Amino acid sequence: MEDGDGNRGYGHKTFSRSRSYFTDRITADGRDGWPVRAGRYRLVVSRACPWASRAVISRRLLGLEDALPMAVADPIQDDRSWRFTLDPGGRDPVLGIRFLSEAYDRRETGYPGGVSVPAVVDVPSGRLVTNDYQRLTLDLATEWTALHRSGAPDLYPAGRREEIDQVMAEVYTDVNNGVYRAGFATHQKEYEEACAGVFRRLELLAERLAEQRYLVGDTLTEADIRLFTTLVRFDAVYHGHFKCNLWKLAENPVLWAYARDLFQTPGFGDTVDFDHIKRHYYQVHTGINPTGIVPLGPDLAGWLSPHHREKLGGRPFGDGTPPGPVPPGEQVAPAGRPG
Amino acid sequence: MEDGDGNRGYGHKTFSRSRSYFTDRITADGRDGWPVRAGRYRLVVSRACPWASRAVISRRLLGLEDALPMAVADPIQDDRSWRFTLDPGGRDPVLGIRFLSEAYDRRETGYPGGVSVPAVVDVPSGRLVTNDYQRLTLDLATEWTALHRSGAPDLYPAGRREEIDQVMAEVYTDVNNGVYRAGFATHQKEYEEACAGVFRRLELLAERLAEQRYLVGDTLTEADIRLFTTLVRFDAVYHGHFKCNLWKLAENPVLWAYARDLFQTPGFGDTVDFDHIKRHYYQVHTGINPTGIVPLGPDLAGWLSPHHREKLGGRPFGDGTPPGPVPPGEQVAPAGRPG
Repeated sequence: MEDGDGNRGYGHKTFSRSRSYFTDRITADGRDGWPVRAGRYRLVVSRACPWASRAVISRRLLGLEDALPMAVADPIQDDRSWRFTLDPGGRDPVLGIRFLSEAYDRRETGYPGGVSVPAVVDVPSGRLVTNDYQRLTLDLATEWTALHRSGAPDLYPAGRREEIDQVMAEVYTDVNNGVYRAGFATHQKEYEEACAGVFRRLELLAERLAEQRYLVGDTLTEADIRLFTTLVRFDAVYHGHFKCNLWKLAENPVLWAYARDLFQTPGFGDTVDFDHIKRHYYQVHTGINPTGIVPLGPDLAGWLSPHHREKLGGRPFGDGTPPGPVPPGEQVAPAGRPG
Repeated sequence: MEDGDGNRGYGHKTFSRSRSYFTDRITADGRDGWPVRAGRYRLVVSRACPWASRAVISRRLLGLEDALPMAVADPIQDDRSWRFTLDPGGRDPVLGIRFLSEAYDRRETGYPGGVSVPAVVDVPSGRLVTNDYQRLTLDLATEWTALHRSGAPDLYPAGRREEIDQVMAEVYTDVNNGVYRAGFATHQKEYEEACAGVFRRLELLAERLAEQRYLVGDTLTEADIRLFTTLVRFDAVYHGHFKCNLWKLAENPVLWAYARDLFQTPGFGDTVDFDHIKRHYYQVHTGINPTGIVPLGPDLAGWLSPHHREKLGGRPFGDGTPPGPVPPGEQVAPAGRPG
């Protein structure tokens, strides 16, 4: 996520998300020079960011917390972008840096692009390895298997990839990125097209999910993770701040139950920090919200209400099991507290 | 209504609504020099404005359309404030003026305050008589009785005034004006206090209205009109634009049914122009919404859905009758069309 000071789309005629620049892959065979190794890399995220949150969820579901330790950036960027002001002394305790940009600089001096999360940094050298948010979670699911916990689900099953990729592509264009195109639009028509596209796709997804617990097959997959990270932010920030307001998620019975089902599944809701989410969007995007005031709402208590999606069947973790408790030091504020 | 370019509260530490400056009263006995006369005065409103909309509704309910003709200002003010750009040639066809400020100037040269609606102008002299929005509708109900239609309701019944005044005072502070204090707040604490106050009062009103069809007694009164003009704007503008977002009106079963009941009562919904409302708030308040983009939502179709409040009893018009159809030339776009 690089909107805010790092967002190159805002102020232009049409919001366009820049492509990840560093696309090295960390693989089992290490063909890019970055072999999967326990403890070698550090995942840098913001809990505010939907793109980074995909990785936070995958890491939990797959049980990679020990193998891939995580640094959480302050939800409020300054003019040097993501920073470790939540840590003692304002430095990440492992990388020893104050700004994520320092890891970018060690990788490439004078890199002209934005600093984005998620980012994976090589701990020994302090260099950025990848900020390729589209690839990162697929690699966690398929390349890091040797380090998965026992009982980890298969989030990108070989026999379903075509369908998963198709769903994810539609969700990306219309929903994940559609809310940003709506929110950062500077012209009425551009906004209306994006906003209408968001809801057109959500209606189709609601139809798909009416009789089916998960997006693809009968288990959780990467497709669910990617839809969830937008849905969980919908009423808190996209509805008002990004003007995606035909209806609230809480007004759509199917999608609201689907989102609550995931939220209440270990590995999803226990990664969500609504305080980080709200403060980031409302305080960083001063071009949309000049006062920086963060709304009191919405009331979040509903996230913990019964969803009744079990009656649709489905085997959330397939032949596997849910992840264990959140590791110490990674807990977020209790979910479902009043907004 | 004088927010927007005429709003003196925005940018200050605390939003404060200026008092009406011209408080002459038009009375049956003409003691202020302004006797009630059919056709002598012109009511100037904006359909965007909740304060002016009180008068639009009262005028309809009481059947004063012929006795007190109405001028509708453009919902978008320019730097000279309310203007008659919706009329042919950009002039009010009766007063012959382009800006409401011209009637203010004829009343008092160099008047230093803002130009606000509702305003009543004396047609023969072209001078402003009053912009006292708190008094205006009470006088329509109690001083203009000789010109009321047959079957007009008593909107301010003598035996209920203490209770009506009490409810209206609470609704004014916490709700009618509370949404503005929230929306124009420039500091987090000021916003939070106002927003919390809005919802605290709405919760109390929902309790009051759970078993009782109208706010006071069993008939429509001025108190219902004043709550309605804020509720009808709630999801369309106050929820997102003013950050009053703990919940949508549509999420509160009691208040949502109450608001729909009024909306579907002749004289209420037939005065509401959601297009004027949305464009005014989102395009005029550039300090809150710099892009001027007007959201597509919310979906308005729900306003026409059954409310089932008849089962609570009540006699909307007391011993009277509903008003007839909206006069030609005063129709608004069909209610309940998609946002």
